[in-house]
Amino acid sequence: MPTAPFDFTALLPAGLPPAAARWTGRVKYDFTGGNNDPDALPLDGLIAAAEGVLRREGRTLSTYGLNSGPQGYRALRDFLSGKLQRDAGINCSADDILITSGSLQALDLVNNTLLARGDTVLIEEDCYQGSINRLLKLGVTPVGIPLDRDGMRIDALSNALADLKAKGIRPKYIYTIPTVQNPTATILPLERRAALLQLATEYGVPVFEDDCYADLSWSGERPPALYAMSDIGNVIYIGSFSKTIAPALRVGYIVAPWSIMSRMLAIKTDAGSGALEQMVLAEYCTAHFTKHLPVLRKSLRAKLVTLMESLREHFGAAAEFDDPQGGIFLWVKLPDNVDALKLYPLAQAAGVAINPGPEWSVNKTRARSHLRLCFANLSHEEINQGVAALAEVCKREFGAPA
Amino acid sequence: MPTAPFDFTALLPAGLPPAAARWTGRVKYDFTGGNNDPDALPLDGLIAAAEGVLRREGRTLSTYGLNSGPQGYRALRDFLSGKLQRDAGINCSADDILITSGSLQALDLVNNTLLARGDTVLIEEDCYQGSINRLLKLGVTPVGIPLDRDGMRIDALSNALADLKAKGIRPKYIYTIPTVQNPTATILPLERRAALLQLATEYGVPVFEDDCYADLSWSGERPPALYAMSDIGNVIYIGSFSKTIAPALRVGYIVAPWSIMSRMLAIKTDAGSGALEQMVLAEYCTAHFTKHLPVLRKSLRAKLVTLMESLREHFGAAAEFDDPQGGIFLWVKLPDNVDALKLYPLAQAAGVAINPGPEWSVNKTRARSHLRLCFANLSHEEINQGVAALAEVCKREFGAPA
Repeated sequence: MPTAPFDFTALLPAGLPPAAARWTGRVKYDFTGGNNDPDALPLDGLIAAAEGVLRREGRTLSTYGLNSGPQGYRALRDFLSGKLQRDAGINCSADDILITSGSLQALDLVNNTLLARGDTVLIEEDCYQGSINRLLKLGVTPVGIPLDRDGMRIDALSNALADLKAKGIRPKYIYTIPTVQNPTATILPLERRAALLQLATEYGVPVFEDDCYADLSWSGERPPALYAMSDIGNVIYIGSFSKTIAPALRVGYIVAPWSIMSRMLAIKTDAGSGALEQMVLAEYCTAHFTKHLPVLRKSLRAKLVTLMESLREHFGAAAEFDDPQGGIFLWVKLPDNVDALKLYPLAQAAGVAINPGPEWSVNKTRARSHLRLCFANLSHEEINQGVAALAEVCKREFGAPA
Repeated sequence: MPTAPFDFTALLPAGLPPAAARWTGRVKYDFTGGNNDPDALPLDGLIAAAEGVLRREGRTLSTYGLNSGPQGYRALRDFLSGKLQRDAGINCSADDILITSGSLQALDLVNNTLLARGDTVLIEEDCYQGSINRLLKLGVTPVGIPLDRDGMRIDALSNALADLKAKGIRPKYIYTIPTVQNPTATILPLERRAALLQLATEYGVPVFEDDCYADLSWSGERPPALYAMSDIGNVIYIGSFSKTIAPALRVGYIVAPWSIMSRMLAIKTDAGSGALEQMVLAEYCTAHFTKHLPVLRKSLRAKLVTLMESLREHFGAAAEFDDPQGGIFLWVKLPDNVDALKLYPLAQAAGVAINPGPEWSVNKTRARSHLRLCFANLSHEEINQGVAALAEVCKREFGAPA
């Protein structure tokens, strides 16, 4: 190794994010991120699918894009067009779908196609951290729209649009997770969807619909997607297999009109997303997806029940939450004096990882005492132990639970 | 479908590339891109690896990053650290390696960490199209360094560095594919490597070493990587499994000092690259990589011989080329009156896809009559038929071959 190592610092352009820290492993009780339920992973089915599809058409791996072109493996897009019709009421063909490397690449492609520094977008006030952070990094202003138990409040959306218009600002999009919202797990009812679309049309603002959790409503029922309800093609829709099959696969997708899809495709210069995941998902899901979902939902729901019971046991009235309608996380309100950003490193030191509310909201003040707890990846026992450990830290530092 | 579809045009920011065209399928004789040899794909081995690794640790798919952290699947990085030591003389650990979604993401991460609009970099004059295009899109000036049969000319590099210094310009990096260069297939000898590193150190310019083809030298021999020879850690190294296993997998990697790796890691916000590819590659390569390479090289070399014989048969003296030292492509010079950019669409219409020289060079004028022909993906018969069809078009349009 060099005695006087080369110094890259002077070469770095302005505006880079801070250096990453070395990864030091996961903590014992990890309630963060979108990690999924290992018990419900259809491993045998995936293994059989891998063997089947590779035996049949594995030699196409030698070709960029698997002879399916830049929008992704054809059989997976065919599965998706059927699935989206069946589940979300979306009438689209394989040609309307772009496979991406997780829904994170989908977010980047949509953002890089539509946004420039100084732009404004509308977004649910409590919202997915990855979406908020991307906007801030791009120098885009996210205007938060408050939610209630039925998701985005349409009166607040209407007011925000009118306010911005009065200031001469046309937002670039309305970003929403209408079906099993992250982190509130709310589901936007049909009438609100219609009202949201009407406002979007009236103000000439497209809708960016993130439907990553939609398959995880406990009832298995859901309203049609905004994409399906729009009659003027003003919705860009994204989805993912991270929450229904496994996050490490990194497979998401975009459904959009060709006028905007063709611009996103032009900036997707990665020569396609990973082939094995696309092939294995197509093979597995075409045969088994609809049977797999109830198994997954049941396992998740049981873990959620454990989490809610653990919170009642260890936090009592100090932890407030609604019983979510689906998903893999619980949005928890602790007493006002609990600063979740301060709780975070203390909990981490005690082996418990949490998502502090302010990171999942554009209203940092209101979300100050909130936590997002993902319950999918832990066992029932770990959930209970993790909540107990968290309660202990919280009590020691903030006197709550009492 | 909408009668008056929403118009996204007014929302698009300045500087977007033109819309992509609809994909219309591949032509019959496709000599483009980096498609690989389907005959030499180790399909049985990959299938067995998939089953083995998924049975053993498949449930980690439920976790982002497979419990290996953001730098990628640990077992794959362990394989790579051994492989790089053995083949390229690189002394690095798994902690020095970042797995990427193909070497294209590696290019983007390096560029986005080091480059800003208006910067200058040095690059081999004839070079990989994807590298040139990325620089142009970023508003960076690539200064071309001519090659001879031993790769980059060090006298020209020295002059270019001195010229730039006289103008007060410090280039951001020297980009080179020193081992089986793309498109010339040259291998930079040891002395030139030492001289290049000495110049890099003298002028304070880091080296960006793209080693994607290095495993495909016919002899199986290669000089040590520049990364291995540097004693001040001023080299960023990238590699790929596209050329040794299969391009559709989209798995590449970066080896770099932590001071710069930590900055690249901070902008890799995709929550990891595809897990199945990483797992299957680690499982397969750890056991079989060194035995697979000679099989692949032999198959590729035989196809290259067929291509060279076909060119001699159908083009005669009109096609000039050196016998490459490895790789999957041949860099061909046609008579001066042949405009490769004009030949391209005509050949395409006749079912033959080629890479026109000007797209693979920063010296568009000198590369005007050059073609890059990738021979890996076609059968021997297709190579012969494709070259015959290309000769026919070329003769009809340009009178050459005579």
